[in-house]
Amino acid sequence: MTDYRRMWSDLNMDLEKHDQLMNALPLVYEDVFLRQAGRPRAMDYFDSVVAEIHSERIAELQAHKNQGGKICGAFCVFVPVEIARAAGAIAVGLCGGSQFWVPDGEKVLPRNLCPLIKASVGARLSGTCPYFQSCDLLIGETTCDGKKKAWEVLNEYAPVYVMDLPQMKRPRDLAAWREETGLFLDKMEELTGQRVTAEKLAVEIRRQNRLRRALERLYRARQADPVPVSGKDALLVTQVGFYDDPDRFIERTEALAAEAEERIAAGEGVFGAGAPRILVTGTPMAIPNWKLHHIIESAGAAVVGEETCTGTRFFAHQVDEGGVTLEEQLQALAERYLKINCSCFTPNPGRIEDILRLVGETRADGVVYYNLQFCHGYAVEYHAVEKALKERGIPVMKVETDYGEEDTGQLSTRVEAFIEMLR
Amino acid sequence: MTDYRRMWSDLNMDLEKHDQLMNALPLVYEDVFLRQAGRPRAMDYFDSVVAEIHSERIAELQAHKNQGGKICGAFCVFVPVEIARAAGAIAVGLCGGSQFWVPDGEKVLPRNLCPLIKASVGARLSGTCPYFQSCDLLIGETTCDGKKKAWEVLNEYAPVYVMDLPQMKRPRDLAAWREETGLFLDKMEELTGQRVTAEKLAVEIRRQNRLRRALERLYRARQADPVPVSGKDALLVTQVGFYDDPDRFIERTEALAAEAEERIAAGEGVFGAGAPRILVTGTPMAIPNWKLHHIIESAGAAVVGEETCTGTRFFAHQVDEGGVTLEEQLQALAERYLKINCSCFTPNPGRIEDILRLVGETRADGVVYYNLQFCHGYAVEYHAVEKALKERGIPVMKVETDYGEEDTGQLSTRVEAFIEMLR
Ligand code: SF4
Ligand code: SF4
Ligand code: SF4
Ligand code: SF4
Repeated sequence: MTDYRRMWSDLNMDLEKHDQLMNALPLVYEDVFLRQAGRPRAMDYFDSVVAEIHSERIAELQAHKNQGGKICGAFCVFVPVEIARAAGAIAVGLCGGSQFWVPDGEKVLPRNLCPLIKASVGARLSGTCPYFQSCDLLIGETTCDGKKKAWEVLNEYAPVYVMDLPQMKRPRDLAAWREETGLFLDKMEELTGQRVTAEKLAVEIRRQNRLRRALERLYRARQADPVPVSGKDALLVTQVGFYDDPDRFIERTEALAAEAEERIAAGEGVFGAGAPRILVTGTPMAIPNWKLHHIIESAGAAVVGEETCTGTRFFAHQVDEGGVTLEEQLQALAERYLKINCSCFTPNPGRIEDILRLVGETRADGVVYYNLQFCHGYAVEYHAVEKALKERGIPVMKVETDYGEEDTGQLSTRVEAFIEMLR
Repeated sequence: MTDYRRMWSDLNMDLEKHDQLMNALPLVYEDVFLRQAGRPRAMDYFDSVVAEIHSERIAELQAHKNQGGKICGAFCVFVPVEIARAAGAIAVGLCGGSQFWVPDGEKVLPRNLCPLIKASVGARLSGTCPYFQSCDLLIGETTCDGKKKAWEVLNEYAPVYVMDLPQMKRPRDLAAWREETGLFLDKMEELTGQRVTAEKLAVEIRRQNRLRRALERLYRARQADPVPVSGKDALLVTQVGFYDDPDRFIERTEALAAEAEERIAAGEGVFGAGAPRILVTGTPMAIPNWKLHHIIESAGAAVVGEETCTGTRFFAHQVDEGGVTLEEQLQALAERYLKINCSCFTPNPGRIEDILRLVGETRADGVVYYNLQFCHGYAVEYHAVEKALKERGIPVMKVETDYGEEDTGQLSTRVEAFIEMLR
């Protein structure tokens, strides 16, 4: 414990403020996760990851740095982590999911902005996130207006490299994104001083594909009724996937998926058979944002899938492993990443197809559209999603919220009413 | 008058609702414009344009359509009107500036969205804007998240073609924008069935350059103290420039500028010499949005310039007229338009340079940063603008508002205090 305080201090963290943050977490975690009945044993690992979230993994990052390695942080599932790793860097997800960081973000950003952005910037400004403090380079992207412009502010505090994401999916946009992927490779080589070879990149492509398949396997198990793993637990696993060591994460997620499959064979579940099943779709839920899932599952429904960036958008679609040259690999990476159906694209019909397909696969009784406040892209896209769902008689409700607790009571009431209707 | 009602009816307008809109306008106009003391005589023309805003100009558009001509509408100063005109179309600005249209926009769009977008979409949905009703094609662009996604909704009601604007200004972004400009030319040829020749395009490039110079001349006159024309009048002129016949507009604006120059020579002005001088910067003010200017000038200060898209961003920079081939002309157009410093670019240092230069040129005592509510790009960019101004000791205040009147009293109080401080 004393060692970790020294580590945090070496990372220029605000120890006092950090204590406040860390003191609150165990209570929340117990309430949201540990009190769940009948959890899979394999969740123990993920519980321990959260318990040591600012210590063990950070020590690993520091060990990497002490050997001359570099760390880079990303805020979006469009950043091709394979390339960062092939250059010898460790890539971690940095999206802020805690209200704790919002006030610091609001010191430099407008209040009328998505809490994810305010929390992410606030985490850096407050010096209370050891992942941020460990990063040699932050990787931003031109996805939404808020993030695109927030990088300029964040860049005053830490170096930010910005990837330019296309706004459409025409052939010429794929070509532009392929070029951008190459520029990112150059940048990573510059950062680490290591050459990215086709051999190294092939290893990392296969590794991340395995990670995607592990999550896919876990999510497939959630299609069963009764559902063998709660939505909260599945969400947590996915969140951990953004910063854990990939090999260890794959192993532990496979173990969890295997346990879930055993439960299915035994007809066991964490909710009774026939419990209402909810597909969540919308904006990402960065750790420790478990608010909506906790509300839904406390009301007795199971979240059986997430069409979000902390859900299927993170792991859907494999990168083609057939590429032999760097050029072929970069093309395969660009193609896979551009299959992600974020609302930042116009038009974005693929997302509606995904949602409809997932409603079928997960046997969802209803859809909850999760919209972080002031996220225009997803908020406007609700119009089309709602229309597509209503045309097919699939119940949908929209939840627009932030990280605060003020609206929890009201949200619970609305969600309970929605679930009652599904029974 | 009867004829116009038939015209509106032929345009599938909601006549009753339209009457409500038009009945309110004269009273507001009288209050905001006609009561100003010592206005230039040449403003008579612009007063008459507003008085006939839904009749005379619309009749001209209909006459053009009756001869087989096409009309297209745009929402952003990035759309190269020269190309539309060279293809034989008339291009009109469609940005909605009235609260009247907001509730209809909110039927299909989230409430937490920029009023300009909600009003623009609402104008179409309510069938009360004859410009919208006259358009054969709407030209959207991928500038901000709200507009980018709103085109998908609007497209359910009217055909929308979307230009993909780059998000950075690297050489490769200019190349992409040059390509996009070419695609727009193809689209315009397809719409009108007319070929765009280098000869026709040269004519339109020169025409729009003249229009820009006329506005520039008017704005230059505002640098004098006392200021010969009010900020409200200059704003109105610029707003009219988006949909008036360009040749007539150039002639009338030149006449106004000439009158303003005579006044300067005679030492005459609309505000007393030494009145506080305000530069406005920020989001566009679409007609009839005169709210901020009315508040500032009612408090006794003169608005002496607008670094906005209904200000300098509309007319700054000429298109190089040296291009002989279509390729050269398209390159020149792309280069000129990409000089516009909208907050949708990252980074956007040019805008800060523009603001600082304009503060000097207009001899402004202070800057009012105008931010339409929920416009993230400009809201986040305020951080950098404020910093640059404060470093130089230039007073700045931020105004975040919508089209409603609820905050007018409070805004007036804040603006008055700011102006008091400048005296
Ligand atoms: S929602 Fe879009 S911008 Fe946000 S992380 Fe996902 S892909 Fe990136
Ligand atoms: S949730 Fe929306 S506004 Fe927030 S970072 Fe993601 S895309 Fe941007
Ligand atoms: S502010 Fe930007 S997006 Fe809006 S009209 Fe101006 S250039 Fe276009
Ligand atoms: S003011 Fe801002 S949010 Fe509104 S249309 Fe213009 S760029 Fe978009």
